[in-house]
Amino acid sequence: MNRKRITILGATGSIGKSALDIVARHPERYRVVGLAAGRDDAALAELALRFAPEQVALGDAAAAERLARRLGNKGPRVLGGAAGVSVLAAAPADLVICGIVGAAGLMSTFAAVEAGNAIALANKESMVSAGALLVAAAQASGARIFPIDSEHSAIFQCLEAGRREDLDHIVLTASGGPFRATPLEALRHVTPEQAARHPNWDMGAKVTVDSATMMNKGLEVIEARWLFDLTPERIRVRVHPQSIVHSMVAFRDGSVIAQMGTPDMRPPIAYAMSYPERLPTGVAAPDFAKLGPLTFEEPDTTRFPCLELAFAATRACGTLPCVLNAANEVAVAAFLAGRIGFMQIPETVARTMAAHTVRPLTDLAGVLEADAWARAHAARLIGEQPARMGAG
Amino acid sequence: MNRKRITILGATGSIGKSALDIVARHPERYRVVGLAAGRDDAALAELALRFAPEQVALGDAAAAERLARRLGNKGPRVLGGAAGVSVLAAAPADLVICGIVGAAGLMSTFAAVEAGNAIALANKESMVSAGALLVAAAQASGARIFPIDSEHSAIFQCLEAGRREDLDHIVLTASGGPFRATPLEALRHVTPEQAARHPNWDMGAKVTVDSATMMNKGLEVIEARWLFDLTPERIRVRVHPQSIVHSMVAFRDGSVIAQMGTPDMRPPIAYAMSYPERLPTGVAAPDFAKLGPLTFEEPDTTRFPCLELAFAATRACGTLPCVLNAANEVAVAAFLAGRIGFMQIPETVARTMAAHTVRPLTDLAGVLEADAWARAHAARLIGEQPARMGAG
Repeated sequence: MNRKRITILGATGSIGKSALDIVARHPERYRVVGLAAGRDDAALAELALRFAPEQVALGDAAAAERLARRLGNKGPRVLGGAAGVSVLAAAPADLVICGIVGAAGLMSTFAAVEAGNAIALANKESMVSAGALLVAAAQASGARIFPIDSEHSAIFQCLEAGRREDLDHIVLTASGGPFRATPLEALRHVTPEQAARHPNWDMGAKVTVDSATMMNKGLEVIEARWLFDLTPERIRVRVHPQSIVHSMVAFRDGSVIAQMGTPDMRPPIAYAMSYPERLPTGVAAPDFAKLGPLTFEEPDTTRFPCLELAFAATRACGTLPCVLNAANEVAVAAFLAGRIGFMQIPETVARTMAAHTVRPLTDLAGVLEADAWARAHAARLIGEQPARMGAG
Repeated sequence: MNRKRITILGATGSIGKSALDIVARHPERYRVVGLAAGRDDAALAELALRFAPEQVALGDAAAAERLARRLGNKGPRVLGGAAGVSVLAAAPADLVICGIVGAAGLMSTFAAVEAGNAIALANKESMVSAGALLVAAAQASGARIFPIDSEHSAIFQCLEAGRREDLDHIVLTASGGPFRATPLEALRHVTPEQAARHPNWDMGAKVTVDSATMMNKGLEVIEARWLFDLTPERIRVRVHPQSIVHSMVAFRDGSVIAQMGTPDMRPPIAYAMSYPERLPTGVAAPDFAKLGPLTFEEPDTTRFPCLELAFAATRACGTLPCVLNAANEVAVAAFLAGRIGFMQIPETVARTMAAHTVRPLTDLAGVLEADAWARAHAARLIGEQPARMGAG
């Protein structure tokens, strides 16, 4: 059996580590051909020695030079800068795992797709801000897109149990975050420390705040719209605090297919890597007798307006999802810095969206332009409100 | 599109009615070519007029003569007796729905499979008593077997989301019946009236008592063993009182795929009829926010020994599952007649199994012989215990 050629963008991050864990468990199946990261030359050098890729890249050019010195003449080819990462992403591979966050991830994801490489997508920005373009690029090049966050992987797996034309709707599950039961008034006084604690998943601060505002789920709604070619009416969100049901698909015969498991990133990443096969991942299926009750509720859009904002953005389409995402990033950073309160995150996003003139998405330049406009506008809104600042 | 030719064995029963409901909803897809029942000539005549099959059959020969008179010369061909039902089952069809219970169903199911007809199987006896023979007959003729009770249909659907070789185990869910929480001592005094009430499904008295003893789930374990070619160690049973999760499949990557829905027979029957498509069935997918918590527990084999007996029977294989089934039928009938207590059902089955010399299954005659022996032995055991009789 020919080993699958794997390129990992974001090799030193949590997605990259999980993917390399799968590679290490199944060396007979996978061969790492490219590894890219941001600026950690020491960590990438270590991975390069262990997995012997043909190329490595660091987005930070100076760090790339340090990496080249570390690896010496006999090591892999070393690329530097955003362009270098994109060259590595476009090199021939059977699967490119896109685990770089932010705009840098956007560029390299497009580079991989335009080169016709199948991708396993963790970079939210690509689908949220530029879904229409990414899907069109994939159709043009024939690149396949596999989701690797747990909800979309669940939908992808459930869809295997039926035909696309028999789909009625999908149900994205949401943990509800740490403030699922917190009254509206108390939400105004939430601190960054409180918001950065997630009950079921271990994630970074930005993502954890997104989970607390439910913007995380809103971004997933937008992603699902593009990944599965769904109109927003076919996407439901249900709060499921136990995070055992990763998501569900309802077919027109009344059947619902759910994908479940212990919250862990390895199975969905492994599934994207091994589809249509499934490999041992080191994660066991839960014994349902040992779990507590599984519960489901409708999200409260009064306390968590971000979800409705995301639905509105995906209905409007064009540049609006990109604006939502950019304004949210600015607002979350301001919240984490103690400059605005928790409920000012959705307020900032809503006001930025309201001020935006939606345009159709035609190219990546348009995405970057809308993104920059939204960041500037949101920052201005936050700066304009000194009386409402402070996170407590 | 050519309409699928459908034969229904047990057309006047609950499976038959649900199947005909699907046919009536999708007349452009299905054409009824054969209808068979037991003895209700009036009901079958009505169905014959409505669905215009080529052949009809009644297991009761005298009733078949009445049916022929009702339908007259211009009606379908009328067959009578067990042999007539089997002739109808073997006639060319794209799917034969085997909804006749008991030994009569066994014979006609085999006739359909030996003729190479795909079958949708509701007749438990075929798989429980003669699974090895039925699977061998299907392999020989190329007949495909679709399950149509909700649990096995669920497993069948979930297996579509993965490859057979990646399966780890299956989880059959059980409602737990009306006495799920009843203490052992109180179980001894359960009345037939109490046992015949099922919380989630509307079924006949025998099946409802089987659900109360959990023998129903035991029989399903044996069926699953043959339907999905599983060793007993790969079959788990979990009590799930809400009957929303119809069953689950765990793959080796740690993923669990579940099939869920409102308890209703139509979706699984429709799935067998339309596979791999899914059709509108008149049943909507549940809104999970409107359901209560979903819970799962391990079955208590002290209070419900029938489940362990069924596992023991399928481990031993040969004639023992047939003996378990026959002894259970006799014991349940005696319980419903008020002749033995509730906990004497498993006791009678266990003692009959212990007295049986297991032989390999080689032909249907051997099945019928083991069945007759077990019935006689169980009846003798019940007759021998006058001091322990009485159901209260």
